[in-house]
Amino acid sequence: MKYPIGAKKNTNHYNSYGNRGMGLENDIEISNNFYLQNNIAVVHKKPTPITIAKVDYPSRLEAIIKEGYFRTPSTTDYNGIYKGKYIDFEAKETTNKTSFPLSNIHDHQIKHLEMIHNHGGIGFIIVRFTKLNHTFLLQFEKLKHFLQTSKRKSIPLEYFKNYGYIIKDKYNPRVDYIEIIDNLYFNGGTYEE
Amino acid sequence: MKYPIGAKKNTNHYNSYGNRGMGLENDIEISNNFYLQNNIAVVHKKPTPITIAKVDYPSRLEAIIKEGYFRTPSTTDYNGIYKGKYIDFEAKETTNKTSFPLSNIHDHQIKHLEMIHNHGGIGFIIVRFTKLNHTFLLQFEKLKHFLQTSKRKSIPLEYFKNYGYIIKDKYNPRVDYIEIIDNLYFNGGTYEE
Repeated sequence: MKYPIGAKKNTNHYNSYGNRGMGLENDIEISNNFYLQNNIAVVHKKPTPITIAKVDYPSRLEAIIKEGYFRTPSTTDYNGIYKGKYIDFEAKETTNKTSFPLSNIHDHQIKHLEMIHNHGGIGFIIVRFTKLNHTFLLQFEKLKHFLQTSKRKSIPLEYFKNYGYIIKDKYNPRVDYIEIIDNLYFNGGTYEE
Repeated sequence: MKYPIGAKKNTNHYNSYGNRGMGLENDIEISNNFYLQNNIAVVHKKPTPITIAKVDYPSRLEAIIKEGYFRTPSTTDYNGIYKGKYIDFEAKETTNKTSFPLSNIHDHQIKHLEMIHNHGGIGFIIVRFTKLNHTFLLQFEKLKHFLQTSKRKSIPLEYFKNYGYIIKDKYNPRVDYIEIIDNLYFNGGTYEE
């Protein structure tokens, strides 16, 4: 993997993460912190959008939200920058063993990824089949191709095997999606699994 | 202003915004929707980060947050893509008439903008002096220069006049920061006020 020359470990406030639960989201958070600390990429998860209906102020400096509701996100969960390029993706897990139900991704998230793609950014999804312990990266172009050519409501595992890229398990970064992005977009596209 | 060729108005779910209060944040939201609808740029405000402590489920489909707390954001509020470039900024208002207090921007937000800059992105701040009705765009480089050369805890208005760019009032987009970015980074840097 060709990381930028001069990348070095630094210590900042981002390294205070323990083993807070498992799952894809946690693995990506740990990976993003690794990228940040090693000056490889700057990628953050967006906060969960919430509509606040009621706030209490028990003191001048304290605010407690007493009533709030989850909103549907208008974009994907993750975006950032790698080697000058804008990257944007959504990450989902499925317990399904043979396909990934498209109901996991909102229409406007697909529309958002399409806009990013059209504006010259790198868009993709990361999908983990938890029971198979396989995590795939699927470029937006391949996702779009599937949506345009299939009427299925789920993407078969075979499609990920044929058109996506397996993200190998590692110690750190746990979900090294940047390695795949690097090979796909920055090494002349000569990616090999 | 040189917008991308072929930019045209489309109708999507982003256009359902009324006149929800005033202020810089609202003006930027309206501007970002204009950019989105006209296929000029894809920029979104990140949701306010909240730590959720308690959630009630009055029914299977409904979730109500009953206790939550505001978190300090770890990045800036806005990011997105314009002509393939990653852009990232923070926007603040001040009622001060002569300077902008740096306490309005967190240290880690400045650090974040610096990382974005180092990775090849476009970072800046937008500052409105509400009582003067002047809104400025100040590139991260100029902000950094100030922080490195001054011990002052606020940036004088003069500094914005000398090193920043005035964002003119318009009907729509109300805060046309993309016009300035376009001139600074995409027209050979020949920007004139």
